[in-house]
Formats: sequence, C-alpha cells, structure tokens
Amino acid sequence: MCRWLAYSGTPVLIEELLYQGHHSLIDQSLHSKLGAETTNGDGFGLGWYGEGEEPGVFHSVEPAWNDRNLREFAAHVRSPVVFAHIRASSGAAVQQTNCHPFRHGRFLWMHNGLIHDFHRVKRDLVLEVATELYPAILGATDSETLFFLALTFGLEQDPPAAVARTIGLVEEVGHRHGIEHPFQGTIATTDGIRLWAFRYSSEGATRSLFYSSNVDVLRALYPDNPLLQGFGSESRLVVSEPLGDLPGVWNEVPEASYGVIQPGADELHPFAPVAA
Amino acid sequence: MCRWLAYSGTPVLIEELLYQGHHSLIDQSLHSKLGAETTNGDGFGLGWYGEGEEPGVFHSVEPAWNDRNLREFAAHVRSPVVFAHIRASSGAAVQQTNCHPFRHGRFLWMHNGLIHDFHRVKRDLVLEVATELYPAILGATDSETLFFLALTFGLEQDPPAAVARTIGLVEEVGHRHGIEHPFQGTIATTDGIRLWAFRYSSEGATRSLFYSSNVDVLRALYPDNPLLQGFGSESRLVVSEPLGDLPGVWNEVPEASYGVIQPGADELHPFAPVAA
Amino acid sequence: MCRWLAYSGTPVLIEELLYQGHHSLIDQSLHSKLGAETTNGDGFGLGWYGEGEEPGVFHSVEPAWNDRNLREFAAHVRSPVVFAHIRASSGAAVQQTNCHPFRHGRFLWMHNGLIHDFHRVKRDLVLEVATELYPAILGATDSETLFFLALTFGLEQDPPAAVARTIGLVEEVGHRHGIEHPFQGTIATTDGIRLWAFRYSSEGATRSLFYSSNVDVLRALYPDNPLLQGFGSESRLVVSEPLGDLPGVWNEVPEASYGVIQPGADELHPFAPVAA
Amino acid sequence: MCRWLAYSGTPVLIEELLYQGHHSLIDQSLHSKLGAETTNGDGFGLGWYGEGEEPGVFHSVEPAWNDRNLREFAAHVRSPVVFAHIRASSGAAVQQTNCHPFRHGRFLWMHNGLIHDFHRVKRDLVLEVATELYPAILGATDSETLFFLALTFGLEQDPPAAVARTIGLVEEVGHRHGIEHPFQGTIATTDGIRLWAFRYSSEGATRSLFYSSNVDVLRALYPDNPLLQGFGSESRLVVSEPLGDLPGVWNEVPEASYGVIQPGADELHPFAPVAA
Repeated sequence: MCRWLAYSGTPVLIEELLYQGHHSLIDQSLHSKLGAETTNGDGFGLGWYGEGEEPGVFHSVEPAWNDRNLREFAAHVRSPVVFAHIRASSGAAVQQTNCHPFRHGRFLWMHNGLIHDFHRVKRDLVLEVATELYPAILGATDSETLFFLALTFGLEQDPPAAVARTIGLVEEVGHRHGIEHPFQGTIATTDGIRLWAFRYSSEGATRSLFYSSNVDVLRALYPDNPLLQGFGSESRLVVSEPLGDLPGVWNEVPEASYGVIQPGADELHPFAPVAA
Repeated sequence: MCRWLAYSGTPVLIEELLYQGHHSLIDQSLHSKLGAETTNGDGFGLGWYGEGEEPGVFHSVEPAWNDRNLREFAAHVRSPVVFAHIRASSGAAVQQTNCHPFRHGRFLWMHNGLIHDFHRVKRDLVLEVATELYPAILGATDSETLFFLALTFGLEQDPPAAVARTIGLVEEVGHRHGIEHPFQGTIATTDGIRLWAFRYSSEGATRSLFYSSNVDVLRALYPDNPLLQGFGSESRLVVSEPLGDLPGVWNEVPEASYGVIQPGADELHPFAPVAA
Repeated sequence: MCRWLAYSGTPVLIEELLYQGHHSLIDQSLHSKLGAETTNGDGFGLGWYGEGEEPGVFHSVEPAWNDRNLREFAAHVRSPVVFAHIRASSGAAVQQTNCHPFRHGRFLWMHNGLIHDFHRVKRDLVLEVATELYPAILGATDSETLFFLALTFGLEQDPPAAVARTIGLVEEVGHRHGIEHPFQGTIATTDGIRLWAFRYSSEGATRSLFYSSNVDVLRALYPDNPLLQGFGSESRLVVSEPLGDLPGVWNEVPEASYGVIQPGADELHPFAPVAA
Repeated sequence: MCRWLAYSGTPVLIEELLYQGHHSLIDQSLHSKLGAETTNGDGFGLGWYGEGEEPGVFHSVEPAWNDRNLREFAAHVRSPVVFAHIRASSGAAVQQTNCHPFRHGRFLWMHNGLIHDFHRVKRDLVLEVATELYPAILGATDSETLFFLALTFGLEQDPPAAVARTIGLVEEVGHRHGIEHPFQGTIATTDGIRLWAFRYSSEGATRSLFYSSNVDVLRALYPDNPLLQGFGSESRLVVSEPLGDLPGVWNEVPEASYGVIQPGADELHPFAPVAA
C-alpha cells in the first residue's frame, strides 16, 4: 500500500537516501515493483533527528516525485536517523495528518500494509487507546491507530512487546468481527537511538521488507563505491523494496520476524502477536 | 471562530451570494467585524443542491479570498439552497476533512463557535455517536462531532429536538469535566428543503447571527435594487454577520433561539438544551 | 506526457465522462497504457460550459484519482461540452496556472505532448505573442505558450489556420536553434459550439488520439447499453486513449490530421504546419 | 504588500526568529500593523544557508500562521543567515513559484512593494533580462522580474549598482508608459556572507523598514534578556516592521537608502536609481 525507508548510521544528507540508487524511494513513488500498487502518490513524509529533543517531521499531500520542498529540504538537512514514507491510500483521506511517520515524544512510527476492514473495527480499537493519549490522535488512518495502541501498551519501554500486544489486539478484535486475516504489514519505529522493524501478517504472506548488509562487507564487495566509503560500519538501511540491484546488498527480512538496529551488534528475532 | 452564510430561495448563482455586498462573506474572510478573529483564512467550504440526490460539497484548505476555483465554481453554479463557511481554526488541523459544511445523506451542517476544552471531552462525546455512524466521521473537529451526535439523536427526523439533545449532552459531559461553559455557537443545518439556524451558548453570550428581512418588505424599501427584484418572496439569508449596512435588511436572531426557513411562513422559536 | 478527453453532445453529468468505462480517464491517471508515462499525477483540470458567457475552469495540483472536490464537482455539474486533462509534467512546476485546459474568452485549449527543448526557444516564441495578450499569460508551460500564439494568429476566427501557423512558427524557431523535431502532440480547442482536435508531430510519430464512433452506429452495435440510449446522435468523444475496449467504439485519428466536431456532419482533414 | 525579515549573525534556530517577540513575523501574517494590508496570508517562504553550496528555499502557498511544516522546519534547522517572507498578493497567483525569497546560485532576493501597473510594463521589462537567464524565470511576479533584472545588471558583482540600474530601468519604462510612480518597496538580497537591504520608492514614501541595534548596545540595555546573551556581536535583523516594542531595539532605515550587514562594521548609504 505504501513504501518506506528507515536509515540509521553515519549522518547523511537526506537526498543521498531518497534520490540515489537505480530504484530510489522517489522512483518507487512512480514505479514500485514489489508493492500492492505501482503508484505511491498520496502524500509522503519524513522524520529525522537533529536540533531539539524531539525528531522533526515533514508531511506533504503532494506526490513525492515532483515536490520541490522535499528536494530542497533533502539537499540541506543531514541526520543520523531518517524515516521516509510514500503513501498509497487504502481509503483514508489524503491529508497531512494521515501521512507517516507519526511522532510521539522521541518516537517515530511508520507502516506499510493495513488493518483489514478497518472501518468495522476502528471504534473498538480506538476505545483501547489510553484515555490520556486519545486527544493526541490527529488523523484517521489504521496506521496511526496502531501507533497509539502500541504507545498504550508500552512502546516507549519495550517496543517488541508493545507491538506484539498491539497486533494481538488487532487480531482478536478482527476475529470477533469475523475478519479472517486482520493484520497485514511492515512497521518501523525508532527513538532516535535504536530502530525496530517488524514484518508480519495474519495470513503469513506479508509485504516485502529488506535490510542492507553490513557496511564492512559491502565495502569489501564494492571497493570502488564512494558512497560506501563514507558510511560508518554501523550504518544500515531497512526498506520496503531494494533501492537497486547490486548483488549482496539486500537481504529479505524473514516472514514473522523483527530486527533491531542499534549501537553494537544488530539483531533479528522471530515475531508473534500476543493476545490480551 | 468562523463565519457562515446560509441561503434558501430562488436559485441563484453562488457568486451573487459570496462576492456581492459591501461586506461580503469573502470580504469577511479577510476583515471580519463581529467575529472572535478578524481573519478567517483556515479553509472554506460550500454545500449546494443541484444534480443528484445528495447535496454537493466543495472543501478547500486555502483562504477563500484568493481561491480561483471557488471563484470559477461560484460563477458557474446555480442553486436554490447554499451553505458557505469560512474557517478560523480553534486548533484542529487545516485540512479538507475539517472544513464545513459537513454532509450526511441529504443533510448539511455548519457551525461557528466551539466546544470548550474539546480535547478533554472529545472521547466521551465520540463514544455517544451511534456505532453505525462512527466510521463515517472523517475529520477531527468539535463541529463534526456535534453533527454526528445530532444524527445519532434523530437530526433527520426532528432537527430542533436532535440539536437540543446534542447540546444537552455537551453541557452534561462538560460539566462532569469541570468545564463552566461547555458550548458556544451558531449552527445551520438543512435537508435541501427546510433550513434550521440555532443560536445558543452555555454562558448566554453567543456569537452573532442575523437573518434577512422578507423580500417583499425589502423590495418596498429598495425599489431600485435589481438583485432584490430577481428574488422570489420566499428567499432568505441567515449569516454570521450582515453582508452590508442597508437599514432594514438585517435582523438579529435572539439569544437562545432558532429559526426555520421553509416553504410557507418561516418561524422563530426559543431554544434550550435538553439533558439526556 | 498527459492524457485528455473532450466531449461535445447531449449535456451529461461530468462524472459519466470521467469515472465510467473500464479504462476511464481517472484510471488513466494511475495506469496509462498508451502514454509516454504511466502515471499522470501532476495535477488536472476541467473546463465546461454552463452558466455565464465564458466556460468555467477547475484546476488542481493534486492527482485526480483521489481528489474529493473533483468527484463532488463531477457528480453535480452537467454540461454539453467538457474538456478534462490529467497532467504529467515535462518540467514546468506543478501549479494551477500550469494546468490545462487554458481559457481565453469563450475558448478552451489543452495539449498532450511538448515543444522539444522548450527552455531554449521559449523566449523567441513568447516574443511573438501579441503585446496586448502577453499580460494574460499566467503560467510557464509550453502548452500555454502554444495557446497564446494561436490566439495571436487568429484562433478565434479560424482555428485550423491559427494552429497551422502556430506549429509552423514552433518548427521554424526550433530549427533555427538546431532542434530536429520541434513539435510533438495532440491539441483540443473549442468555443463551446465547435470542437477541433489536432494530431501532429515534426517527426511524424505523434501521441495517440481517438474519436468515438457515431452514436447511431453504436446504438445499433450495443442495443442494451443504457448510457448510449441516453446520448443524442450528435454526441462525440475525442480522447488520448480509449476509455474501454468495446469493439467498434474507438477510431484512431490519423497522423497529421485534425477533426471538427460540430452541429451537423463532423469533419476530418489532413493537417500541415504553415511557415510564417 | 508583504512583510519580511532578514537575519545575519550567530547561527540560530529559525523558530527563534519567526515565532518569538510580541509581534513576531508569524503574528504579522495575521495582524500586520504597518503594512498596506493587515493580512499576509498568500503564502510564505524561507531561505537559509547550511549544507551545500547554494542556500535552501522552502516555499508554501498556505498561510504561515497555521503551517505545521514551517513550525517543524523552523524548530529543527539552525542557520547563520535567514530570509523569511510572508506574502499578500498584489495580483499574481498564489503558487510556490511566486513565493519569496527567490534564489539564483548563492543569492537570495525578497521584496515588499510593487511595480505599479506591472501588467503594462512586464513585457518591456522581461525583454531586458539576459537571454541566458530568461529560462530560469519560474513565476509571474514583479518581484522575481526585479531579481532577474538585477542579476542581468551584475547583482553578483556589485549589488547596490545592480539594484540602482534595475530600479532606474523600472522608472524609465514606467514613465514611458505614463506611470507616475513606477517603483515602490523594500528589497533584501544576500550571498550568504553579506546582506543588502534597500528602501526606495519613486514617490518618496516607501514601505517601512527597520534594523536592530548593535547587539552590544542591546545587551547593555537589557542585561537580563537571555536571547541577547546568546547572540554574537555581529548579529543583526532587518525587518518590515518591528518584532516587538522594546525601546532602543529598532531603528528606521531612512527613505532612499540602503544598508550593508557584513563581517566588520555595517554600513548605511543613500540610494538613488541610475538611468540606463
């Protein structure tokens, strides 16, 4: 339904992440190969960490491919952690408050996929959002509802546990409404230091998700690539679809699993929802 | 917080309603005299009846004063019932789904004013919206919440009773949260045949509201005005502020009352909220 | 580069033209089959004749596929002559003043294609626009420049002659700048009564263009189609690509030719540019 | 017609420039005191120097007061030289390509005022723009035309001389067309190191312009103000209207003069147009 990119590592100009590669995220906004839709033109969003305690977010309802402000911004802002998302609406209005990434405190959140038959379960799900968090919901998407459920279930303390409870609830409520496969998608979240990426769907056939190989390995593979030489060993990308077709660069995140990008060794674990 | 205009009568080009008069609604978007804010530049909206069963709506996030599509549209569409609204946001995002008039079936709804401390009572109020109507809420405003509460309480059967119960609920929930004066505002609603306009606030000091004098009277007063000669006897305007300063044209709707514009004699009644 | 549709005939709800058919214009905005690009998401525009002397125009920078105002508008406005255009920018900014159709007096104009290397010849071409027309140029596209050249050369008196001189000038100026194939494209223009559609390119390989068969013939072919039964005998569509794949409905406009849709018999003629 | 702010000095978060002060630029977008219009809601723009050789620009057609991207951006980007502009259109369309500041290479340019009867002289003025610069004109405003004339006349080598020739030409062409007072306004331009601000009008009654006092003086005046303590001695603001009413802070730029903010002593000189 959408395409996204998450980066953590050496501070980079955002344009190096968005516009470079044979199949950059901006190119994917026009010609996605692996997405449910080929066009992701219903707005986009950026999140980044820099000045200030909280990350900044930039949301636009225009298609990313021709947006001049995005191009300006990306060419002039450098950040160690970047989230970028291009949207293909599954129904909710094209408006800034429906654009990813969503933010709460130091956390960012983005999602590719959907809660099936969301209009049937929305009320029951929103009722589970903590009363004190409820007024901070700004938009109308399933993705933002997932974020606020995860916050309710302790995202800021233990992201994998909070996401497991969130999707567990979505499945429970969905099944109660007779929906066979309630959840589908990939999710990325970060506090600006660690980054978690999830791949799961109720039917066991989740939208694609890839992570980049270790930079040291890539440098050995491609000794002449100047971009790689500038990247620190800890740099890592997680993406809905590969940004190019260099062999050895992209690894698929396995079905029903999640990864953690962090200082030190990164991790990859199995993922399963947890019922309430 | 906003300014609005409701018209019922001889089909008119919408531009005659929006752009004419010394103090037209478009002029009010830049220089409101009686509003809580002088500038109403946070989007606008139109509703009208023409082709099709349901009224059409046109919502824009741009200020009305320079919007070229509004000018084109208004110059080329004629309708017997028109709602127009210019917005000054009291907090909710500037996006089309937050623009008035709101529509459900054949009904339109618009509001000038606010639910005080809406973020504190929003959850409790939204919970009272009928479960089957809940998924149709598209935006985030207090005004749309009022509309869906009124629909829940029978707006399509008995508008004055439904609005009385809606505001009764808002006051009850607000008082429970320690809010002294929960409701403030004027409301217009129509099914395309009859038009109801309400003026009420918990503190008894409501935003201004005016209705135009009977066209036959106006024609006698201003025999040389060509616009008036073209209007049928049943034509009537209700507005947040007068569109000009011709003596005898504008009459204030009394505090805590509502009017009904309809085929035959129009009506004016006292209004009081009804507790649940 | 773009896709367009021109209709003349029995007044129709605009939504019947835009949203119906297996491969409607709105579908083409996401998945064009015959266009130079598959996505036409850089704004859209409508022109129609109704109230008032001049046609109305509605221009938007949002992609057509998800635009709620377009859907509302199309569902509530009926017109005997409709121009609709979805844009894929060949460089000029995505802004309303670059959206087709362009209007001057009673004339509308839209274009699919481009002036090759426009930035090199723009100044020389704009200098040929009549001094009194120059201030009415609002945008920055090659297509609008073509329109103002055609107006300069008598579009309002003799459209085929004016277009021939316009493209003749474009070729002359282009050749002077060493551009091998200066002009490419299809053009539609109308005064609300007659409608002219041109297909020509300097290299003799022009973007596709089709016109619908005579409605009487279509009714005989498809006696059970209710849409056709409602259309008068004079109704005709000209489109960049067929709106569906019913056999017998769509006929290709030949290379280097133009058609005239008008009261009485329509016409099809060869087209050649005329040097200054 | 517009309001602007130019800053040079210690790198600051842009939000400190835009949102602080009793009468901040954002407040002026709603309630200008000294402007020709009280509302400046027809878009805004930012220019800043940071990453990259060229300055970045951010242009929006939304009113500045409620723009969420502007608020995010301003809270997360720090720069030593900032241009900010809020627009009240004098006729040209509300679109990004008409938003200030304009950029060419390392130069930024913004303007408050107008070329009187611009539609009558536009063609003659645009013809004087250097042929190689002509294709870089993106919008339709008098202000951008001034910028390209100044570039033609050597802005990058000697800004005061180039601006004098530009306004000299505007006056000459205007007088030739019978326009009594062709030019009105204040202009700011910068290469990221030096900043020039001009105040001039043909009628000798120019829009207001102010510069802030030397920071050392201000610190002595207001020893308890934390913002001032953080500013380096070279920091300086030039603004259309004062951002607050602290005595001793704001000094009017005299009629027909220009200032230079630069490393070392700043300068103030008389200004007069130079005929061709």
